[in-house]
Amino acid sequence: MKRIRVIGIGMGDPGHLTRDAVEALATVDVFLVADKGEAKADLVRARQRICAELIPWSHRYRVIEVVDPERGPDRERDSAAYGRGVRDWHAARVDAYAEVLATLQPHEQTVGFLVWGDPAFYDSTIRIVDALRPRFGVAVDVLPGISAPQLLAARHGIPLNRIGAPIHITTGRRLLEEYRPELGDVVVMLDGHLQCAGLAETHPDLRLYWGAQLGTPDEALVSGRLAEVIDEVRRLRAEIRARDGWVMDTYLLRPA
Amino acid sequence: MKRIRVIGIGMGDPGHLTRDAVEALATVDVFLVADKGEAKADLVRARQRICAELIPWSHRYRVIEVVDPERGPDRERDSAAYGRGVRDWHAARVDAYAEVLATLQPHEQTVGFLVWGDPAFYDSTIRIVDALRPRFGVAVDVLPGISAPQLLAARHGIPLNRIGAPIHITTGRRLLEEYRPELGDVVVMLDGHLQCAGLAETHPDLRLYWGAQLGTPDEALVSGRLAEVIDEVRRLRAEIRARDGWVMDTYLLRPA
Repeated sequence: MKRIRVIGIGMGDPGHLTRDAVEALATVDVFLVADKGEAKADLVRARQRICAELIPWSHRYRVIEVVDPERGPDRERDSAAYGRGVRDWHAARVDAYAEVLATLQPHEQTVGFLVWGDPAFYDSTIRIVDALRPRFGVAVDVLPGISAPQLLAARHGIPLNRIGAPIHITTGRRLLEEYRPELGDVVVMLDGHLQCAGLAETHPDLRLYWGAQLGTPDEALVSGRLAEVIDEVRRLRAEIRARDGWVMDTYLLRPA
Repeated sequence: MKRIRVIGIGMGDPGHLTRDAVEALATVDVFLVADKGEAKADLVRARQRICAELIPWSHRYRVIEVVDPERGPDRERDSAAYGRGVRDWHAARVDAYAEVLATLQPHEQTVGFLVWGDPAFYDSTIRIVDALRPRFGVAVDVLPGISAPQLLAARHGIPLNRIGAPIHITTGRRLLEEYRPELGDVVVMLDGHLQCAGLAETHPDLRLYWGAQLGTPDEALVSGRLAEVIDEVRRLRAEIRARDGWVMDTYLLRPA
């Protein structure tokens, strides 16, 4: 193996990939993928479609599914414990990947990781590849992709920042502790529990721009005053979960 | 005119555009562009290359350069005055665009704005188009693009966030007032004066990931402890400005 390429593939539609990312796909001999969770079947299908549409039929490649190690319970509110849990899980994933990489055939020189969204945004692939790099002495490159907050903004037709003001990107588990209007517009990722509901009373004038299943045909969008639209978002989330079995959503909170 | 498309074109290389953005280019009858500042000639050349490489020769389009209104002095430290200055300038730009749009020919139904990076990140095009929309009663869509912070992270091979931690995106003019390690990893945009130098003494352990002319053949990257590399960044900035006549840079500050 000579090279690992970390390729951002956007939010599931072949139209989201950059031309550089498409070109990179056609150089990969072996794709390593680790899907998990409720969205698995839909994500596998979206990825297959991307490969089928964008890789020339003359290019041969293998896809190896790597069994993802069990992730320990990490619902602790405590950030240090959360960080440790994630790091342990990463270490186990590094070992699982290393085991697979050791079995590659001599002509398999380029390994690709397909990453939803942008590899730089709340994704562990770059950290895992960093840990693999010294073991295998390979070159690494990263191709950026369109991330969920970008697609959210595009669909709502809004910028993520107000004039000259900051953007703060954080996680659902941190939102309530962290929130202050001075943070600027706040983008929330990885929030399975719609934590922003906890701000509806204290900051009723916040505007919410919410989107789920972004980039798929089932995309749902809601915007309005947080206090007014939160119930509609709750209802839609439940509806989407009942229909698809999974919800991937992200949102922006904008001070009035 | 029936439709305005706001198209993110990434950082200057035709490889940065998404497949959706490329498809959108070929639907545009009239591109409106307003270049200004020192980088003008290079930006015009990069945009011409994008149009020449990516729009099929059979598709006819016009490019109209809109004279950008003078921007008043807005070096005030005060945010309210800064915001007012930008808003006045936006209003003048809206009028300038509206004047041009009123002269379009009947077959010119789709107008396109090409935006460097992502239209959602520190760009005024969406606000200007929002102001034009009611005057002309048109539909608007936005195609996201790869932004400078994303390319910065990809080139350095790093994620923008640490595990479970936030990302804060702010401007050079706000950095020194706003900075606290609790903000997480801080991305700084629109900083013509390398304000991070003012943190080198108080936060010597901050790591700096800096990049200039990202996405061009003259790309420059530096990373290391802020206090140790700041002089090298200063030297490189001066060198690039002497050579190209302009510098576009962005950087990430990561707590130790």
